[in-house]
Amino acid sequence: MSQVRVIGIVGGGQLGRMLTLAAKQLGFHVVVMNPEGNSPAAQVGADEIVADWYDGKKLAQLADAADVITVEFEHLNADALAAVEATGKPVHPAPSTVRLIQDKYEQKVFLNQHKIAIAPFVKVESLPEARKALKKFKGKMLLKTRHGAYDGRGNALIRNTNDLKRAWVQFQGKALYAEGFVPFSKELAVMVARGTDGKIKTYPIVETIHKRNICVEVRAPAVISIAARKKAENLAKKVAKQLKGAGVFGIEMFLATDGKVLVNEIAPRVHNSGHYTTEATHTSQFEQHIRAITGLPLGDTSMRVPAAVMINILGERNGETVVTGLEAALQLPQVSVHLYGKAPTKIDRKMGHITATGKNVTEARKRATLARRRMGI
Amino acid sequence: MSQVRVIGIVGGGQLGRMLTLAAKQLGFHVVVMNPEGNSPAAQVGADEIVADWYDGKKLAQLADAADVITVEFEHLNADALAAVEATGKPVHPAPSTVRLIQDKYEQKVFLNQHKIAIAPFVKVESLPEARKALKKFKGKMLLKTRHGAYDGRGNALIRNTNDLKRAWVQFQGKALYAEGFVPFSKELAVMVARGTDGKIKTYPIVETIHKRNICVEVRAPAVISIAARKKAENLAKKVAKQLKGAGVFGIEMFLATDGKVLVNEIAPRVHNSGHYTTEATHTSQFEQHIRAITGLPLGDTSMRVPAAVMINILGERNGETVVTGLEAALQLPQVSVHLYGKAPTKIDRKMGHITATGKNVTEARKRATLARRRMGI
Repeated sequence: MSQVRVIGIVGGGQLGRMLTLAAKQLGFHVVVMNPEGNSPAAQVGADEIVADWYDGKKLAQLADAADVITVEFEHLNADALAAVEATGKPVHPAPSTVRLIQDKYEQKVFLNQHKIAIAPFVKVESLPEARKALKKFKGKMLLKTRHGAYDGRGNALIRNTNDLKRAWVQFQGKALYAEGFVPFSKELAVMVARGTDGKIKTYPIVETIHKRNICVEVRAPAVISIAARKKAENLAKKVAKQLKGAGVFGIEMFLATDGKVLVNEIAPRVHNSGHYTTEATHTSQFEQHIRAITGLPLGDTSMRVPAAVMINILGERNGETVVTGLEAALQLPQVSVHLYGKAPTKIDRKMGHITATGKNVTEARKRATLARRRMGI
Repeated sequence: MSQVRVIGIVGGGQLGRMLTLAAKQLGFHVVVMNPEGNSPAAQVGADEIVADWYDGKKLAQLADAADVITVEFEHLNADALAAVEATGKPVHPAPSTVRLIQDKYEQKVFLNQHKIAIAPFVKVESLPEARKALKKFKGKMLLKTRHGAYDGRGNALIRNTNDLKRAWVQFQGKALYAEGFVPFSKELAVMVARGTDGKIKTYPIVETIHKRNICVEVRAPAVISIAARKKAENLAKKVAKQLKGAGVFGIEMFLATDGKVLVNEIAPRVHNSGHYTTEATHTSQFEQHIRAITGLPLGDTSMRVPAAVMINILGERNGETVVTGLEAALQLPQVSVHLYGKAPTKIDRKMGHITATGKNVTEARKRATLARRRMGI
């Protein structure tokens, strides 16, 4: 069935790089489209078309060069992606899914329509509406931009009218919505894969830790009750069934203090919270995505080690990329370091990640934390 | 300590490819020298110098471009490699080790000198000497070429004077030696890593299966007695201590029917019998080699799954590379398929490999065997 030889990826960053590696292992050729040349994906042998995310012409060129198109990033030209699909070229996930996810408000409406548990939310188009929302949400809410938000950019916690005024200036000119603040004990995530045949496989539920709104750490598996795990798994499957197109999806969730599990956000692609799968599950999220979009059967998503912890290597300064402490980090057992080949380094830029495995999350965490502490970039 | 940025590899085949992937993950740049362009290593982002294995000038060019030189293949210009080392550029393993291993007879002399258990052997420079050897070895011996032999090329089993005459014609003009035939119950192999600091780590002992003198299957761990395992481990460490230079070495052994373990052959590099480590041990042989030659600490060599079986995907015909049955193979759980991007396919050419993991060797073997049977190339 799989007649795919060339895979086209919109985006050649670290996700495109790890997708390229998985694709090459299975014998596929890869072309990426990326705003800058010598992308992390090109460095591992992907052909490269240098073009802006929204360049529809270059996207059509990418489509001409490939048998199937996928994305590593959702903030792109969804119309151009839909035009590619209209020519009969397979696009995974479906452009309609990408478009839905581009607008976080529409995403919430969609989840709500499909009776998927989420935090209460409301559209806000004026400051008075925002004030009304803050009242409705009992004085604590999140104001979020509808478009272009990722890695926590475009989120503001609002606890009073001063917060609101500040955020209103910050987000000036942007379409917004507000979300009731749900007190939560943990943030969870799960990768879900869907094949072209509609079959669904879920990865283990993991716990994610965010700092400055960026995912910094992932603990696999999440140490939560069986009941919470079941809820999270069922939610993930329910979401995956509603989305169109094949591939891997990242679903971020909250474990609320009242025990409820709510979906926060969906990523229509491989995701930072799934990096641990390279070392820790029988099929990595990257190979799984390649299998899914090329019509190959989905692989085993179970863990092959008891536990794993992933910690991002975020840039610590702005300037030339200089890695320090690799030797010290690798002195620790069961520690894998992944560097993405990005230059220059920038504060909070995702430059690499560390995955440590161990007999439990505590052991893996110790190793990963210590390894990260020993490195600089 | 590690000031290496660019790694030069003599050879860009599947071993060079998997070394390149490991090097890139750790942030190194790679240049390979390979007799043909678009090598498997170049396909995953290595820069490439196209040159014959014995081209000393191009080897010097490779050395100029790199901070450390290593090899994926030992049948190369050892003098040129030594000349590179003489300029002060680190070469791993040491050119003297490569030269030693190029001559299988000298290799045996060396092992014998260091009191490492091997089969009895004798140099043969004429047909009468060969007849004498056959008598000495009680009518059953192996006649082997001293140079350029790999994947079993250059070995002949001699049981009578007719066999001898045929082999003598076949090997005409080649330097030869003879080895007494030792009845064995299993063929074993072990990968050993040695750091630039002299530290040694051994991988699990595996069982290797050969057909037509080519390694076709590797079972990890080898199902052997504790006593045999200890003997094999000790032998491997003893060998590694005697070899010069850092890196990973493959040591092939026989488990004789009398319970003795004998060293058969050494590969001064990553080896087919270590491919299973990518899925099955905490540090793959490829990452380990990169760590070793760049002065990084050696990684954990223990298994992260109970068992793994690797089966080579050897070419089944001569012609255009067309992979069939990938979909059917990937329907099996815990099966990883690695394709090397080689073209054309040739009978018995190493085109890829399959590694299956499982709760024991029997389960892993079933999966790997079935997956291999479902594929064609």
